[in-house]
Amino acid sequence: MGDTPRRGPSRRQLLLGGAAVGAGAAATLGAERAGLLPGTGPAADTTGVNGERIVPFHGARQAGVTSTPGAYATYVAFDLLESTDRDGMRAWLSLLSDDAARLTQGRGALADLEPELAVRPAGLTATFGLSREAVHRAGAAAPDWLRPLPAFPKIDALEDRWSGGDVVVLLHGDDPTSISHLLRMLVRDSRSFATVRWRQDGFRRAYGSDPHGTTMRNLFGQVDGTTTPRPEDAGFDAAVWAGPEAPAWLRGGTSLVLRRIAMNLETWDEVGVDGRENAIGRRLSDGAPLTGGTEHDDVDLEATDASGFTVVNPAAHVARARVEDPSSRIVRIGYNYDDPVEAGAVDTQGRPAVSNVGLLFGSWQRDVDAQYVPMQRRLAEADLLNTWTTPIGSGVWAIPPGCEEGGFVGETLFA
Amino acid sequence: MGDTPRRGPSRRQLLLGGAAVGAGAAATLGAERAGLLPGTGPAADTTGVNGERIVPFHGARQAGVTSTPGAYATYVAFDLLESTDRDGMRAWLSLLSDDAARLTQGRGALADLEPELAVRPAGLTATFGLSREAVHRAGAAAPDWLRPLPAFPKIDALEDRWSGGDVVVLLHGDDPTSISHLLRMLVRDSRSFATVRWRQDGFRRAYGSDPHGTTMRNLFGQVDGTTTPRPEDAGFDAAVWAGPEAPAWLRGGTSLVLRRIAMNLETWDEVGVDGRENAIGRRLSDGAPLTGGTEHDDVDLEATDASGFTVVNPAAHVARARVEDPSSRIVRIGYNYDDPVEAGAVDTQGRPAVSNVGLLFGSWQRDVDAQYVPMQRRLAEADLLNTWTTPIGSGVWAIPPGCEEGGFVGETLFA
Ligand code: HEM
Ligand code: HEM
Repeated sequence: MGDTPRRGPSRRQLLLGGAAVGAGAAATLGAERAGLLPGTGPAADTTGVNGERIVPFHGARQAGVTSTPGAYATYVAFDLLESTDRDGMRAWLSLLSDDAARLTQGRGALADLEPELAVRPAGLTATFGLSREAVHRAGAAAPDWLRPLPAFPKIDALEDRWSGGDVVVLLHGDDPTSISHLLRMLVRDSRSFATVRWRQDGFRRAYGSDPHGTTMRNLFGQVDGTTTPRPEDAGFDAAVWAGPEAPAWLRGGTSLVLRRIAMNLETWDEVGVDGRENAIGRRLSDGAPLTGGTEHDDVDLEATDASGFTVVNPAAHVARARVEDPSSRIVRIGYNYDDPVEAGAVDTQGRPAVSNVGLLFGSWQRDVDAQYVPMQRRLAEADLLNTWTTPIGSGVWAIPPGCEEGGFVGETLFA
Repeated sequence: MGDTPRRGPSRRQLLLGGAAVGAGAAATLGAERAGLLPGTGPAADTTGVNGERIVPFHGARQAGVTSTPGAYATYVAFDLLESTDRDGMRAWLSLLSDDAARLTQGRGALADLEPELAVRPAGLTATFGLSREAVHRAGAAAPDWLRPLPAFPKIDALEDRWSGGDVVVLLHGDDPTSISHLLRMLVRDSRSFATVRWRQDGFRRAYGSDPHGTTMRNLFGQVDGTTTPRPEDAGFDAAVWAGPEAPAWLRGGTSLVLRRIAMNLETWDEVGVDGRENAIGRRLSDGAPLTGGTEHDDVDLEATDASGFTVVNPAAHVARARVEDPSSRIVRIGYNYDDPVEAGAVDTQGRPAVSNVGLLFGSWQRDVDAQYVPMQRRLAEADLLNTWTTPIGSGVWAIPPGCEEGGFVGETLFA
């Protein structure tokens, strides 16, 4: 929903005379790299097309939940000022939606002095989430699961500065300039209502880098996201969208869990390919199951080797994470982060740290307690991957449904 | 030199059946946005092409000086360990070149356990620069201009943590994943020789966002870079490449000045369009001179209005920056930065800061003292733009020439 195919020529292009040949085709054809051969100049230029790509803001759902994730993410969390009461919440949320509705559609914000920075949104989306406190300020009742996750003492090293926040906004898109401009408008319009608690930036492969449909890789080099449910999959709606069990204002919305998970590249570097693959249950080269097949085949958790042991280690990440019932799964959305090393940071050997990388791990699910928490418990208990990963930030938010033109995200709280 | 046209279908694509129609054309045709119309699916996919784009690493010049700047920049500066002597310098510089030579060409580094992160470099380049100290450690003589810029007390608020560094590496490319991976290899291979002093990240419009040839905009919304000399312009070679006046090891190289310039969006917000345009001498909407014409016309600094005043304020940025002799110009390369606000940061009114943005201003020139310094003096003395901008970081490095296969950047120091 909400999104349009981001690739392939437009109807207009086709009408005007011919389609480009697939990059996949060009790439697999061998050594002459597509981009290296002389082009025919601006007349054959397709490079502006993605800038014009617009994901509708209005609709029954917030578009960012199911639209193809853009190459960049900027997440910002706000803490409410004490003075922000129910009327303040309403005013603020409608200001935020107004900014998002305009900028995601390629129009400047109200009183925008740099409207030119808005014209090519490149698939920009803004998705709003609310904490229990935010829901209460708006005078509404919160679902039970809307609170910080339980502690996972075996793995957590949570820092306050990466955790929590009363309102979260997720910006996704293919262009950092349009993300930066929308962020600025949102922060500017929040001054009377809230302060910025944290901001986190992440990335995937840039638009244009990978052939259509390529799954992203995280900074451990793993193919990451293969099995996450897609909107067209059986069970997706039941897994994601809040139904009659939820307070009326949340129906048609969902929830977000966001974990900032540090990845230790120094110790990961000490592990060979076998150890790395054993930790996940899939191959590094192409993401295929260790039990055979290709990337989009399921890992066979029962398959045994000659000595009768399971091929996939029962403590491998996918073995621990697996959920059989499609309507109980979570939908994962991950972005790599690679931030400058902080002053004074040290690695596990006490030497000056040389990297500060990890995953912004997000997940959508209908019910955090029923879907996310049991899975996270299993992983915290035993997951080989824990050797090299450390959750350092955490938060849970309700994602209200979308709004129609003239409305705003969160309006159902005031109905 | 060194670069290939990044846009336009390849010869292979053309052979295989037709070229895509220009995005520019599709865009100017009006309301039906190119990216919004239904595509024809993966068969018409061109989105992997840019990932395969390779800028040759080897050659007489370092490729990053003149190749089309990619959408992302990561700059890293190293401080040499005391123990790094002439042999250490040679060993370290050849390791760095080896990493760069492989990763920019889409191959994994030596002992790279995530070679898959290297396969699609998306135009990745690495450009190496050396300070006076680095040149001395290598046992060579440095040109006079190779030292920190003189102080500009009217404007400078330089911070040590953004300034200096013995060796700088500039990574440019269209994909943050390949930049991140090369950065990691460079830092890993530097451990025995140097420590990271600072890292700075910047961006321009993403690949695919703008039609071919569009000049970038900075975060003040200005069209920025219009008049910078291109390799094909008269005087370019004389303006950029070190000749017989330079020490032998530097001939065919150039110099880099890098300034980190904070841009105050809060006070810029208080200025209307007229004031903003007056400060530069060009229009915000399209970058055209205030004296008429279109973006690529020169600003007429002599033109007067009915009352006899010059149309362009003599203190406007372009009036102060203008250099008539093409061989005395500098070549500018700018990237926007938009970093998270730092804890405790305040704005000029003492309120919590709401943004931390600016420009990574880089320039190439044959001779820093002859070209950069006089211009910076004029700007420091009187430039309307100074009201909203503050240099907070600064550095000067020599950019050695390139190297051939089997060699390394900096080898001429040891000749
Ligand atoms: C830095 C931390 C993490 C890394 C590097 C990581 C990596 C991976 C990889 C490489 C896969 C296999 C490919 C795929 O299906 O996407 C995977 C699968 C999966 N992960 Fe993670 N993951 C991380 C954290 C988490 C967390 C925190 C959760 C949930 C609490 C989670 C839940 C899952 C699930 C449900 C699957 C699919 C299992 C299956 O049915 O095959 N992961 N992860
Ligand atoms: C944040 C700081 C700066 C901003 C926002 C900025 C912005 C601009 C803009 C919008 C233009 C007009 C378009 C163009 O020709 O590119 C321009 C031109 C120029 N700028 Fe800057 N600039 C900055 C700093 C500097 C610095 C530090 C220098 C050199 C010391 C410099 C040198 C020039 C030159 C030489 C021109 C071309 C003038 C001409 O011949 O028309 N700028 N700048």
